[in-house]
Amino acid sequence: MARSRQGSLVSFRPDIKVVDCTLRDGGLVNNFAFSDEFVKDLYLANIKAGVDYMEFGYKASTEIFNPAQFGKWKFCKEQDIRSIVGDNKTDTKISVMADVGRTDFKKDILNKKDSVIDLIRVATYINTIPAAIEMLEDAKKKGYETTVNIMAVSKVNDDDLDGGLELLGQSSVDTIYLVDSFGAFYPEQVERLCDKYLNMAAKYNKKVGIHAHNNQQLAFANTIEALTMGASYLDATVSGMGRGAGNCYMELLLSFLRNPKYNKIAIMNFVEKHMQKLRDEGAVWGYDIPYLLTGMLNSHPSSAIQFIKENRTDYAMFYQELIDNVL
Amino acid sequence: MARSRQGSLVSFRPDIKVVDCTLRDGGLVNNFAFSDEFVKDLYLANIKAGVDYMEFGYKASTEIFNPAQFGKWKFCKEQDIRSIVGDNKTDTKISVMADVGRTDFKKDILNKKDSVIDLIRVATYINTIPAAIEMLEDAKKKGYETTVNIMAVSKVNDDDLDGGLELLGQSSVDTIYLVDSFGAFYPEQVERLCDKYLNMAAKYNKKVGIHAHNNQQLAFANTIEALTMGASYLDATVSGMGRGAGNCYMELLLSFLRNPKYNKIAIMNFVEKHMQKLRDEGAVWGYDIPYLLTGMLNSHPSSAIQFIKENRTDYAMFYQELIDNVL
Repeated sequence: MARSRQGSLVSFRPDIKVVDCTLRDGGLVNNFAFSDEFVKDLYLANIKAGVDYMEFGYKASTEIFNPAQFGKWKFCKEQDIRSIVGDNKTDTKISVMADVGRTDFKKDILNKKDSVIDLIRVATYINTIPAAIEMLEDAKKKGYETTVNIMAVSKVNDDDLDGGLELLGQSSVDTIYLVDSFGAFYPEQVERLCDKYLNMAAKYNKKVGIHAHNNQQLAFANTIEALTMGASYLDATVSGMGRGAGNCYMELLLSFLRNPKYNKIAIMNFVEKHMQKLRDEGAVWGYDIPYLLTGMLNSHPSSAIQFIKENRTDYAMFYQELIDNVL
Repeated sequence: MARSRQGSLVSFRPDIKVVDCTLRDGGLVNNFAFSDEFVKDLYLANIKAGVDYMEFGYKASTEIFNPAQFGKWKFCKEQDIRSIVGDNKTDTKISVMADVGRTDFKKDILNKKDSVIDLIRVATYINTIPAAIEMLEDAKKKGYETTVNIMAVSKVNDDDLDGGLELLGQSSVDTIYLVDSFGAFYPEQVERLCDKYLNMAAKYNKKVGIHAHNNQQLAFANTIEALTMGASYLDATVSGMGRGAGNCYMELLLSFLRNPKYNKIAIMNFVEKHMQKLRDEGAVWGYDIPYLLTGMLNSHPSSAIQFIKENRTDYAMFYQELIDNVL
């Protein structure tokens, strides 16, 4: 069935949950090299801002990734999170992301009773959904809330997506995310896909989330498009910090939401103290022509990240290279 | 009547016209101090890119504005335009903007047979529409195509807007623009307003245009929203250069359009040669938190421009000042 818009521009929907992914998607920009002061201040800002979940990073396997080469939020050890949040007696819940095939979930994800983490977010490609479900059931059995991100869905055909959504619908997962990994979607595509996700969600009593990228300056537009169609879990990052073109800006999202629990001033104060400093120290993210090109060609941003790293500006040649390599 | 989307994401609509406003809206950033090389290169880039109209600037009154204090594109004298375009034997038409009350239109707008200009764009507020119509009829009688921008429409109530649109419908104007002067609109508001404008356009056989600002990173999203609803004149600027948060990026718009006449490579080459240089020379525009705040509060960007000029970063205090002064 086709849906109409939910709610209005002056009211609010109590089912909305805002998820701050600054450390996790932003960590892909600076190899998770955030100072403890940054992380602590972000935690305090999120609490004041009414943000519902703060994602601290990944639960990456130390068998695969060398801890000497990454900041600690690539691994999110229990004691490292607790050093920031203590027992987290606040209304902002704690989440971590676990990639299929890159997480020793049986060992590294503790029982909920021993952990300050509330939500395990599993990231999967379409072809690893059975492996994702194994992780999701493990996390659910251990006592966590769970969500699943089906990544790179702009490359997935409708039949496979329908099949994947059906499998996830039958699992215990709480929330299924529509993810625009490559910043390739226009709002009317988000509308169509949301319709698909929300129909599945209605059938299996699940919720739908949205995680957008800003390659075409559409991360905020696509997030509010999904929101007004009925998605309720909304990912954002401070100043849009995230891989490549980055994500939906938390400042924009909180300015749109009408629930009085949300307070964008706390986030603006955090931006003032930390974000320009981070850029001055060398972190580079945000809309730029190379990301527009990978986005419109529906391809991974890695080549654009490399182009910018090399200080190249020959956009026309880069475009030809992309066409040769991705189409 | 409520409309559905026009066209599809893989076809193109031959009624679309792209209007480059870089010199005009961008001129508000740098007082129209563009080098002749910049203007000539932009003209050549627009021709190659298939851009339908290039707006050279304003036809401002030299009785009101001192020519010593502005670049020449504030005034767009015939000989200055001809020094760039000659007789303009190209498919890119020339436009200028004329503000109600700030243009000696009877004297400064020549008969079309004596001018290389093709299109006169009149900018008006809701309460000066009768004066705008006088200018529009003068331009039409002289032989020009005409459009009208009703500015600051986010502050206009529905009854006044209906009345203004009815007056303009009965005039000889060719195209009526939906203008989001303050970057205040969300896409669903653009959709509703487009519906209103397009119904009037259908009644009087006119076209509808869209001119967006990027205060909430929605200029491109709002432009394609209006486009897919049926608007056909689309304003954009290179790298979004325009007052305050700037406009819809030409690079993004051309990457969205499917008509093979449009060629974004010419614009990317122009960006590479000129736009970073312009920023390095001190021109400041584009999304920033102060513009988000004036946009969401539906107020003029002048206070945000001043805030940024003073290198202030105390966003929370600025927000309180805005609430005190505009609500």
